Amino acid sequence: VERIDLNADLGESFGVYALGADDALLSLVTSANIACGFHAGDPRTMARTMAAAIQHGVALGAHPGLPDLVGFGRRALEVSPPEVLDMTCYQIGALHAFAARQGQRLHHVKPHGALYTMAENDPAIAAAIAQATYDFDPRLILVGLSGGRLTAAGRTLGLQVAEEVFADRSYQTDGTLTPRTQLGAVLHDPREVAARITRLAQEGTLIAVDGSALTLHADTLCLHGDSPDAPHLAQIVKEALEAEGVAVCALGAP
Amino acid sequence: VERIDLNADLGESFGVYALGADDALLSLVTSANIACGFHAGDPRTMARTMAAAIQHGVALGAHPGLPDLVGFGRRALEVSPPEVLDMTCYQIGALHAFAARQGQRLHHVKPHGALYTMAENDPAIAAAIAQATYDFDPRLILVGLSGGRLTAAGRTLGLQVAEEVFADRSYQTDGTLTPRTQLGAVLHDPREVAARITRLAQEGTLIAVDGSALTLHADTLCLHGDSPDAPHLAQIVKEALEAEGVAVCALGAP
Amino acid sequence: VERIDLNADLGESFGVYALGADDALLSLVTSANIACGFHAGDPRTMARTMAAAIQHGVALGAHPGLPDLVGFGRRALEVSPPEVLDMTCYQIGALHAFAARQGQRLHHVKPHGALYTMAENDPAIAAAIAQATYDFDPRLILVGLSGGRLTAAGRTLGLQVAEEVFADRSYQTDGTLTPRTQLGAVLHDPREVAARITRLAQEGTLIAVDGSALTLHADTLCLHGDSPDAPHLAQIVKEALEAEGVAVCALGAP
Amino acid sequence: VERIDLNADLGESFGVYALGADDALLSLVTSANIACGFHAGDPRTMARTMAAAIQHGVALGAHPGLPDLVGFGRRALEVSPPEVLDMTCYQIGALHAFAARQGQRLHHVKPHGALYTMAENDPAIAAAIAQATYDFDPRLILVGLSGGRLTAAGRTLGLQVAEEVFADRSYQTDGTLTPRTQLGAVLHDPREVAARITRLAQEGTLIAVDGSALTLHADTLCLHGDSPDAPHLAQIVKEALEAEGVAVCALGAP
Repeated sequence: VERIDLNADLGESFGVYALGADDALLSLVTSANIACGFHAGDPRTMARTMAAAIQHGVALGAHPGLPDLVGFGRRALEVSPPEVLDMTCYQIGALHAFAARQGQRLHHVKPHGALYTMAENDPAIAAAIAQATYDFDPRLILVGLSGGRLTAAGRTLGLQVAEEVFADRSYQTDGTLTPRTQLGAVLHDPREVAARITRLAQEGTLIAVDGSALTLHADTLCLHGDSPDAPHLAQIVKEALEAEGVAVCALGAP
Repeated sequence: VERIDLNADLGESFGVYALGADDALLSLVTSANIACGFHAGDPRTMARTMAAAIQHGVALGAHPGLPDLVGFGRRALEVSPPEVLDMTCYQIGALHAFAARQGQRLHHVKPHGALYTMAENDPAIAAAIAQATYDFDPRLILVGLSGGRLTAAGRTLGLQVAEEVFADRSYQTDGTLTPRTQLGAVLHDPREVAARITRLAQEGTLIAVDGSALTLHADTLCLHGDSPDAPHLAQIVKEALEAEGVAVCALGAP
Repeated sequence: VERIDLNADLGESFGVYALGADDALLSLVTSANIACGFHAGDPRTMARTMAAAIQHGVALGAHPGLPDLVGFGRRALEVSPPEVLDMTCYQIGALHAFAARQGQRLHHVKPHGALYTMAENDPAIAAAIAQATYDFDPRLILVGLSGGRLTAAGRTLGLQVAEEVFADRSYQTDGTLTPRTQLGAVLHDPREVAARITRLAQEGTLIAVDGSALTLHADTLCLHGDSPDAPHLAQIVKEALEAEGVAVCALGAP
Repeated sequence: VERIDLNADLGESFGVYALGADDALLSLVTSANIACGFHAGDPRTMARTMAAAIQHGVALGAHPGLPDLVGFGRRALEVSPPEVLDMTCYQIGALHAFAARQGQRLHHVKPHGALYTMAENDPAIAAAIAQATYDFDPRLILVGLSGGRLTAAGRTLGLQVAEEVFADRSYQTDGTLTPRTQLGAVLHDPREVAARITRLAQEGTLIAVDGSALTLHADTLCLHGDSPDAPHLAQIVKEALEAEGVAVCALGAP
């Protein structure tokens, strides 16, 4: 690994409800995935987050989710591929407006929570998200699980894709994420996270829950924004990467 | 009056709930104001309505509203101008995506229901809607009440505006619409509507509720889509205009 | 079969959106399942529907659904049993208030759409709905698919239950309903429906999609309220039952 | 003043979004106003808050609000009195269910935010809230602004009412609250709050923004739950009252 992007999910506050350490994370990451009002976010929050992301010079991405505010988009919903196509289209457009009014354009798309997982489990859902992305702007980069169905669907359409690895999530033997409903799904120990990232940088592998080594291509690393220790963890990951001589820069940057 | 646009509010169905005679109206009008998911509409409905509007070759417009589905956006909400700016931005962007994916772009913006009325009553709300429109795309045409605050706010920013007259609504002496909560706000008699439109075409005036004649500039005539007799009324209005030799064509058409 | 209840899902309008032939159905059925605002319905609609149901003297039931208005509660959502317990509790209470203010009480509970199906597929979901019902009022009757998991869960808690058969839905060989996403899930031919109901009254059996005869206990027959031909179909069913000498009366009626 | 109730708005979290220091406040107040899912709260949050309130032995109250989650129910909405009647009925019933399933019943009703203010400004809104409360259970106590329209509307129906004074809000000369949109609406200085409460306990007066003394009857004092210093402020107020020999106990307690 010579270079890598660091991304975080941002703008996940809603109305009076504040969530995430957006300001601290924006100083550390190179890409922002901004919530679009379905699983989190609202127009005011999107406007503020977009303005902050532009100010920090990070790559601007849409983070569309399922229409489930009370469940934060983490509960699978039996939506059809055409419904996914249209809800993704809607959310990309809504976020685009906040970039466009500042003379900017979106750079990537990464689905949120259960929609991300559903895309990795179902090629038709993956294809719908890829199609919505392509139809809106074929220059957009589609972010999906490393080695998974979403990036495969993006490649089929000719989209540039980014293989994503999660710095603070544990992996199953088959390369999928441990579901959030299971214990140990989210890693909180900074040293463990740093060790995993160092190994990933050196060997391109990650240890799964059964101890086996997964070979994973990593274009971008996800740092979750909604845990209290997110900024500290992001700092640890960044230092671990720099210690290995990996350049941290946005996807597609020169 | 030599030429005029006919517009209708479309795409106001929601999920399984069907509303409006969209197909019939699309054959009669020259401009479609498409709901954006706040007061009505949802991504699937927006996709279908946009596709139908493109097929009929009508001008494509955003119809942003207040976030009040159960009230159909007809109940005034005490929102601040920055909230209006951002919610309008969001909705224009969301609808734009459905046009963009078919290689089209939006042509105009017309706020819905209580948001429209609030803009006519409050210059700061009018300015926020005009600003959101301008920031998204300064080529967009802003539609507002003939002689009112919204078109004034649009002109201040250098936007092209369209003065709107309502074919099936009664007017107060001061040129504002009779509120929907009052009896006689909506006109249902086709002959009365036709007579009003003929007079408007001939003399540029409309009779207010007190019998006085209002001089109103009309760039576009609104035909409501959510009443059962809407297509019939639209037909009557179109015939009355054509009988007077008024060309019915979209705003800005050559 | 000596006696049977006829039930229909009512109050599924929302705001300006009208759905269902509630008035016509209220003259034909003996039980009303009233939507509670999650998949359909809103406070005004609930108030009106409750008043009409009381006026018609039908048994008053809660019809709780998933929080998915745009999907009309027909899309499975990965909710946990405690979430189902609490959302069912909330909805029963909300509807109860409209009965209580007229000095009435609720008589039964029947979940809607995907929540109903999820309960039949997952004993933990069935148990949660039964528990919410029991905890609110142990005199409530729980309605579920004939021979299914929901009525089993109700019996386990000591609730009175009602085995439901769908007059206008086709059945799989295992006694489950054909999913709505499949062709032929909903029957529209009045003669076919009448023939099925006659057979059910005479022999207690229903023909499944593969031609086999299912033996089904029927305490109550469901007539869907959201199809245009619902009142006609209800009339046909009622006549078929009466022709066989089956008394049509509410569950638990003397 | 010989005795007084201390109340706080609780259960205003939503989904993953945490708001308020509910646990700390429950140890200090004698009455809980629990959000009902319209301006804040959701079924899980309501269940947890109700369980905690019962455990602390405080009086259980419904805190109905406007259907405006993104605005936290603080933006006036042009709802009709019948709409207010039904939305209040709905919310009281929904919360009641969580009390009923633990063998408890609701004790009081206090509207939230803009709905509270709208009731104080408009007798028809006040009457609708009072009617919904009375119709659900005439034993419920209705809480409103001291000397205001809501308690007047409650008395007209024969409801027991409680005159409320806000410990941490500034007052206009006419006895109304300074709107939240104005500077100085919310008081944060514990010493100032304590001095105001001491004066209220000694003389039954509160100093308005222009320095004049308002004579206010206080059955209950509101302590806001959504500010970070709420528990500290509640402690200060309680001590100030006890220093003056005022008994802090729930409304209607023996």
